Amino acid sequence: MRLGRIAHPEGVAFAAIEGPAEATPDQLTAAEIAEHPFGTPNFTGRRWPLADVRLLAPILPTKIVCIGKNYADHAAEMGSEAPANPVIFMKPNTSVIGPNNPIKLPGDSERVDFEGELAAVVGTPCKDVPAAGASKVLLGYTVANDVTARDQQKADGQFTRAKGHDTFCPLGPWIETELDPADLAIRTELDGEVRQDSRTSLLLHDVGKLVEWISKVMTLLPGDVILTGTPAGVGPLSAGQNVTVTVQGIGSLTNPVQPR
Amino acid sequence: MRLGRIAHPEGVAFAAIEGPAEATPDQLTAAEIAEHPFGTPNFTGRRWPLADVRLLAPILPTKIVCIGKNYADHAAEMGSEAPANPVIFMKPNTSVIGPNNPIKLPGDSERVDFEGELAAVVGTPCKDVPAAGASKVLLGYTVANDVTARDQQKADGQFTRAKGHDTFCPLGPWIETELDPADLAIRTELDGEVRQDSRTSLLLHDVGKLVEWISKVMTLLPGDVILTGTPAGVGPLSAGQNVTVTVQGIGSLTNPVQPR
Repeated sequence: MRLGRIAHPEGVAFAAIEGPAEATPDQLTAAEIAEHPFGTPNFTGRRWPLADVRLLAPILPTKIVCIGKNYADHAAEMGSEAPANPVIFMKPNTSVIGPNNPIKLPGDSERVDFEGELAAVVGTPCKDVPAAGASKVLLGYTVANDVTARDQQKADGQFTRAKGHDTFCPLGPWIETELDPADLAIRTELDGEVRQDSRTSLLLHDVGKLVEWISKVMTLLPGDVILTGTPAGVGPLSAGQNVTVTVQGIGSLTNPVQPR
Repeated sequence: MRLGRIAHPEGVAFAAIEGPAEATPDQLTAAEIAEHPFGTPNFTGRRWPLADVRLLAPILPTKIVCIGKNYADHAAEMGSEAPANPVIFMKPNTSVIGPNNPIKLPGDSERVDFEGELAAVVGTPCKDVPAAGASKVLLGYTVANDVTARDQQKADGQFTRAKGHDTFCPLGPWIETELDPADLAIRTELDGEVRQDSRTSLLLHDVGKLVEWISKVMTLLPGDVILTGTPAGVGPLSAGQNVTVTVQGIGSLTNPVQPR
């Protein structure tokens, strides 16, 4: 199932986004879910053509945990070794935006990069989850852009400022609940030109290992998001451009870039 | 006003903790607040002796933003220069515990340190707040312990794992809303022995500067907590010990230390 969050004519709701896997957006329908999408969703019976609603970020996480250098070729392009164990950092949930919302360039950064990523969404409160049990605690997968002020990342050492600006965590277009994350194509395009082109099979630490590693530290809550890391090809965004991250089996997340 | 969160015989609520400034805890009273403590609180009229209720963490923040090396003597004891600008990092809100709740030592760390700190609590949604306007967006101040797995901090470079374990963010005993944070004594005791003893006048970047710096990056929301940094004297915790952080004008936050 594709779980989205929508602004419809009468409010905001979670919804199942229905239609054939290869359908264009105007062939899809949003079926409203009552309350929340965890467990077995209850449908209200209301539905709209997707063209008549607006897709929002598919979830509002209590926390966003991210992984540094989880593809060898990205670690290499950053001039460093890939760490033996996952290195985690966080983005504030105030950085989340949805599909087609603008990424706003901060006035105090000279270089803001895209980083296309597969994101896992937690479905149930959990702690100390073994890698083999990760799929049981996940609601599904979505697409993320771990937008990064590269100059601030280098200046600070800690990544929080560089990666924590408002609008720096586009998520969407929806959460795919039926998906094997082991070997999915992941691609980032800037104004239609391919800049990142990889596969999740090249993740140094796979989704199961990440859930095990993070949940050994902290309790994960429903809706929490894990950004699994970005492959090689990161590069700067300029105002007026459009950046699209696509993960096979989920969909495409496009955001325009605006000056502040 | 002292704003706390309490477990009382019929549930959980915010409360004003009332009594003379120098009163012992058994002379204090908890006056229940309806809904939330932001703006002008509404009182339900119910009240209990503080001894008959349990103080919880005074707030459940949507995010916790912390400052690295914000006292020169602590930067020196960590073997590094104090940075020219604040360096920020985050703790997950799942790390929050209240007064007298146990800090649990993770099985995979050889050294877990206390770090006593003054914490500012945000009172209103805000972005781009000038330093001079910081007091207008703050609800008040509380006491924090930025518990840190020192070995994991060194291994990872990023601080999230080391500082993000469940129970690693004791907050309390309450939020003091009428307080000038400019020059307060701050002291950490381990089993009654003074280990940290400093004043907030020695903060390299004061509360106003921190609010300006952080809110330039991210929107702050009511209840968000800013940990302002720790002075020299950090050191390891062992199971069975009790750690107490005291900030002048607020109160004391004590937590026992337990093995996992």
